[in-house]
Amino acid sequence: MSALASTGSEANDEAAPRLAAAGIAALFLVGAVGGLIGDMCHVESGTTTYLEDPLPYVWRSQLWFPLMVGAGTAALGWIRVRLATSGSGDERGMTEGLRDAVAMIASVIALYALTALVRGEPQPAAVVICWAVAAVIVARWARGPADLVCAAIAALFGVTSEIVLAAAGVFEYAGDIARFAGVASWLPALYLAYGVVAGRLGLIAARMR
Amino acid sequence: MSALASTGSEANDEAAPRLAAAGIAALFLVGAVGGLIGDMCHVESGTTTYLEDPLPYVWRSQLWFPLMVGAGTAALGWIRVRLATSGSGDERGMTEGLRDAVAMIASVIALYALTALVRGEPQPAAVVICWAVAAVIVARWARGPADLVCAAIAALFGVTSEIVLAAAGVFEYAGDIARFAGVASWLPALYLAYGVVAGRLGLIAARMR
Amino acid sequence: MSALASTGSEANDEAAPRLAAAGIAALFLVGAVGGLIGDMCHVESGTTTYLEDPLPYVWRSQLWFPLMVGAGTAALGWIRVRLATSGSGDERGMTEGLRDAVAMIASVIALYALTALVRGEPQPAAVVICWAVAAVIVARWARGPADLVCAAIAALFGVTSEIVLAAAGVFEYAGDIARFAGVASWLPALYLAYGVVAGRLGLIAARMR
Repeated sequence: MSALASTGSEANDEAAPRLAAAGIAALFLVGAVGGLIGDMCHVESGTTTYLEDPLPYVWRSQLWFPLMVGAGTAALGWIRVRLATSGSGDERGMTEGLRDAVAMIASVIALYALTALVRGEPQPAAVVICWAVAAVIVARWARGPADLVCAAIAALFGVTSEIVLAAAGVFEYAGDIARFAGVASWLPALYLAYGVVAGRLGLIAARMR
Repeated sequence: MSALASTGSEANDEAAPRLAAAGIAALFLVGAVGGLIGDMCHVESGTTTYLEDPLPYVWRSQLWFPLMVGAGTAALGWIRVRLATSGSGDERGMTEGLRDAVAMIASVIALYALTALVRGEPQPAAVVICWAVAAVIVARWARGPADLVCAAIAALFGVTSEIVLAAAGVFEYAGDIARFAGVASWLPALYLAYGVVAGRLGLIAARMR
Repeated sequence: MSALASTGSEANDEAAPRLAAAGIAALFLVGAVGGLIGDMCHVESGTTTYLEDPLPYVWRSQLWFPLMVGAGTAALGWIRVRLATSGSGDERGMTEGLRDAVAMIASVIALYALTALVRGEPQPAAVVICWAVAAVIVARWARGPADLVCAAIAALFGVTSEIVLAAAGVFEYAGDIARFAGVASWLPALYLAYGVVAGRLGLIAARMR
């Protein structure tokens, strides 16, 4: 606030978000638990089936799944914070708080459950509603190109991983679901919304240190 | 804050929200009509069935139901206004208007209808989507501890009442619905969202006098 | 634009939104494509069936359908901009941006898909959730009487057109859907939400010229 405060570089430093270890751990935990909840919906509805189970199950998921989503969430949060720090800085002060974190996490989990519930419904309408809800989530929370970069990274890595794992026979999507390359047609939408939210959660976690 | 400011008690009084009789009546009406609409969804979908009907039916509900929801809504609104007045006052000026009232009421009714529509769906995914949508509603409208207190009161009294009434054989939840203690697993989520909204409607009604 | 121009009444003119040809074309395109996506959901779910096909099909729709929705969207946008210009001007600076445009379009498409997905569900709950979601959309985006005028115009013209076309045997709603005058009971809700959004998109398009 004072002229003196702004002379030192620490002032700048203080404003720049950075993720501490606790933040990384929190992001991992949110991703892992959210992934377990969502995957439970997919398994229970028969949307997906694990074909190989070399690892122990956690709830309804093979152990690698929550680890992957947790690590992905932490990575996306870290990337988003890096993009903010290297940016022009005009995003500072636009970070959301705990209420927004809850709303963002809950909206992605609601979309995740929706993708499970539309199994058995006419697939064109099912795919449209999932993409439309994902677009609402993205438009609600993304505030700039960096958030869309996180969305694109999540969709690219997430969908590619699932295509590879489905092709390798590790798990499969039910045959009555609209699919491409072995995965559900609504899958990129889910990852896009997830990517934006994981990135924004990174900014919140960095601000909260 | 200053001694001078606090000499005119009317000034303070004017800023403090208070519920007039018309506000109480409006809250009762909104709760009763909303309850009738939601309960109609539950009865028509077979989610709940009245087993005893000592009182006349209003639409699809036994008369006690809209009375209970109406009284609950008025009580929650009154409690919320009391919590605001006794608070530090930093919530003043944060009250929503008519648009928000419509959005809040409609979102709880949408959730109410959703709980009816997920009957017959895989129950784990059904329970998850109801809790997630409720969390979005709570996170969107709750602005502080007082709103969460209203949510907790609504869930405690609402769910307990329904458990007692279900145990007494007054009505029942369908057997194919995920349940605990005789009531649906998504029931606390519906009451939590309802509690926040009933409280916030109280503040709006107090402001509108 | 020039210094001279800004001295006269054109200064006012500059602030007043006006729809250029490109804006009209963009509104037509958004409406036509959105209509095609939504109608595809209705046809694929058996919600509606074309009984006469004098014109070629575009995707799943008879050619007249996207033309009608596109023209309607452009007309509503134009009407909304006119209402803003003739108004008191206190709406200026309240126009949304691209993010909001995406959120508005996606929310109406999500509602459109929802109306298709609730076919086969208990109709009272289906009708309630569609009206409630529409109310959330209207309350979220409408900012004044002019937006409600657009909603009313859309509902009046849209629903009347569909009643006439259904009565004429051009298309029909499935018999298991809650209906009035041959059209679905949730139809006015869909048009109300669409009308508000088409009007607001007009304001955004006018601002972007």
